[in-house]
Amino acid sequence: MGNSPTEKKQIVNPSLPSGFNEYLPKDQILFNRMLETIRTSYESFGFVPIDTPVIERSDVLLAKSGGDTEKQVYRFQKGDSDLAMRFDLTVPLARYVSMHYGELTFPFRRYHIGRVYRGERPQKGRFREFYQCDIDIVGNGTLSILNDAEIVGVIYQTFKNLDLGGFTIMINNRKLLGGFFESFGVANITEVLRAVDRLDKAGPAAVSKELSELGISQECIDATLKLAGLCGKPADVLSEVKTWNIENELFNEGVSELETVCGAVGAYGVPENSIKVNLRIARGLDYYTGTVYETFLDEHPELGSICSGGRYDELASNYTNQKLPGVGIAIGLSRLFFQLKESGLIESGERASISKVLVVPMDDSIEYAIKVAAAMRNRGVPTETYVNGGKMAKKMGYADKLGIPYVFVCGESERENGTVTVKNMKTGEQTTVPMDFENGIELAF
Amino acid sequence: MGNSPTEKKQIVNPSLPSGFNEYLPKDQILFNRMLETIRTSYESFGFVPIDTPVIERSDVLLAKSGGDTEKQVYRFQKGDSDLAMRFDLTVPLARYVSMHYGELTFPFRRYHIGRVYRGERPQKGRFREFYQCDIDIVGNGTLSILNDAEIVGVIYQTFKNLDLGGFTIMINNRKLLGGFFESFGVANITEVLRAVDRLDKAGPAAVSKELSELGISQECIDATLKLAGLCGKPADVLSEVKTWNIENELFNEGVSELETVCGAVGAYGVPENSIKVNLRIARGLDYYTGTVYETFLDEHPELGSICSGGRYDELASNYTNQKLPGVGIAIGLSRLFFQLKESGLIESGERASISKVLVVPMDDSIEYAIKVAAAMRNRGVPTETYVNGGKMAKKMGYADKLGIPYVFVCGESERENGTVTVKNMKTGEQTTVPMDFENGIELAF
Repeated sequence: MGNSPTEKKQIVNPSLPSGFNEYLPKDQILFNRMLETIRTSYESFGFVPIDTPVIERSDVLLAKSGGDTEKQVYRFQKGDSDLAMRFDLTVPLARYVSMHYGELTFPFRRYHIGRVYRGERPQKGRFREFYQCDIDIVGNGTLSILNDAEIVGVIYQTFKNLDLGGFTIMINNRKLLGGFFESFGVANITEVLRAVDRLDKAGPAAVSKELSELGISQECIDATLKLAGLCGKPADVLSEVKTWNIENELFNEGVSELETVCGAVGAYGVPENSIKVNLRIARGLDYYTGTVYETFLDEHPELGSICSGGRYDELASNYTNQKLPGVGIAIGLSRLFFQLKESGLIESGERASISKVLVVPMDDSIEYAIKVAAAMRNRGVPTETYVNGGKMAKKMGYADKLGIPYVFVCGESERENGTVTVKNMKTGEQTTVPMDFENGIELAF
Repeated sequence: MGNSPTEKKQIVNPSLPSGFNEYLPKDQILFNRMLETIRTSYESFGFVPIDTPVIERSDVLLAKSGGDTEKQVYRFQKGDSDLAMRFDLTVPLARYVSMHYGELTFPFRRYHIGRVYRGERPQKGRFREFYQCDIDIVGNGTLSILNDAEIVGVIYQTFKNLDLGGFTIMINNRKLLGGFFESFGVANITEVLRAVDRLDKAGPAAVSKELSELGISQECIDATLKLAGLCGKPADVLSEVKTWNIENELFNEGVSELETVCGAVGAYGVPENSIKVNLRIARGLDYYTGTVYETFLDEHPELGSICSGGRYDELASNYTNQKLPGVGIAIGLSRLFFQLKESGLIESGERASISKVLVVPMDDSIEYAIKVAAAMRNRGVPTETYVNGGKMAKKMGYADKLGIPYVFVCGESERENGTVTVKNMKTGEQTTVPMDFENGIELAF
């Protein structure tokens, strides 16, 4: 069994492909805690989980896309199959809903937390494999605008639970933007919106130039920059907008939708000062057709939007003739986690362990120690026993390095008296207490 | 924005690649509950999570393997990179531990729940993408045999928590087997063990023939079949084995290890009748060097082993010269879930929803209803509001189809009186009660 001793083994240097990422236990525990907070926040609103394959048929996954996305996709042949790895969770949702249309109940409210793959140029904080945390509400034919308000409620509750400090949810409406440009006779609205979307990054001069090159009149450009500068309390922005007297149906629909959404979010528990109407927000993706959202940390706007999304008219027109309007958001957690660490907003915990108790036996009391640990687990306290040999200092060092808060020492006297010596690793305090093998013993954490 | 109305869209039939699998919400909820039970069971023993990339460098991932595994691997080129998708969680663990050796604390106790990829011939219940739930304890240089007993404790606790009925953990030791064949002068022990491993599937006649073809003497074959028939209470099997008077150091080491492991599992809370020593168990993989485990449901042995693993001397000899012995197990949950459903051991729940309450407003009470839902969420009860239009019957039908246990009806009178009308969807009972907007109201589930 195994290799013969004369055989010299070839050692391969263990490394990850460029752009791929993993965490040491300390960070993994922290990351998982954030994932869990997002999951429970989503579930509190009754969203159901789905979990689609990472690999899809290329013809299905790439039915719509083109350009940059297609270039970034991990696509390969296996046997006769042309396969591709998902690059977001929206296309798989569209495929899922179309494929299982008859078996789903609408509005279909799903969350999906999973990894997606994009062969981007690797750069700091941009990964080729990263977690997305999505929710969407998909209607069958129609979907009330109140769902758009609920999504704001979900964003608010999720980031409140994540406890990253103050944040503001920016809301806009594509109909308002579309109607605005329609009223100026602009035809290529998608291109114009893409230019407006770059205002933060490129600045007004560059965007003016770009709009001008798109054939937009100076009057419209001036109005656009004025519009794009409007960001504030919903009532203030909306009353300003109404003074413009734009006679355009789409525009007015957008204004009215924004009013409805902003008026309803309070009932979902969202405080007034947590939202703003920001007319600059367009979202680059051209499938948004109504409400759009971005979310910013008040103290760290440089992180960019940490949660974005919006309303779309047709989720799945590539896969079905059913009209499936929806509204949803995504949190790109891998990138956010990286940014939060870089900004010092979160820190790797002291703990590289799940255990709250390490039971350390003297050599003659191992079985006793194992039973002590079992009693603590029965109580619901993650507990491990150090069953490997070594000096006491080594065993204590193990607890210390992993940040396990309590060590239970079990020696001859503890075993004979049915006690444990509890050491609080933070304070150094040590007390010997009777062990309860039925219910474990109480500890302060 | 969007497609012009004259453009006729091409519909792509939404389907999954062959061998890939996803669940409808009912089953996804059930599957996730099982995953969660496994996770909390693993964490109760203080195992820490890791989460490695699905994609590895081909030269790293395939450093050891060959033969069948290599053929099944999803391997592809992206740019200049030769990449491959992980086919198990053990090779990534070996790579992880070698790569981060200096930053880990040993014994390193990790769990890993993730998907792995094998391009096998698709067949019922065999998927090309499936979940594995692994734990391993990896030592630095040495690792006490008591860890092998702890793993039995983890298996026991996990399947007790999964609540799938009675089960038996079968334990054996490769040293015992190795020493046994050594004492007969058998050289090609790995091949012989592979043949023995097929006893259940192929039967004794076929295995005899195979062993004979491997040049094994009739005396050894007879002894082998006798050995392979031994399965029972540890004390019984071990005392029988000792009567054979096999003078072989490895054999005796194996017997002694088995005695230690079986003697210690009781302290981990494992009842005596939940384990057996089964000398037939060899595990096909040739990296096991000591204890080996398989687990069977008492009422459904036809499912095969539902949790297997063992002790190995060198986790990562392909990546490092450090000696890293370990012991671990894996549960192949996707396959197990399929089998449990096929056998009727688990059933899709009645619930296709996470929500426990659906708040249904009359048209004039939507905002009131949204506030009621927020109060229930504050209480920790997953709750959604039906904000979309439609008749009351449609709204009730939605709760019914999703199996949401309670509907709160909010109309004009409820709004005016600060009450809700609570309908228990199972019993049909309906009562109007005052709403507590601070703490929500209590419900029986």
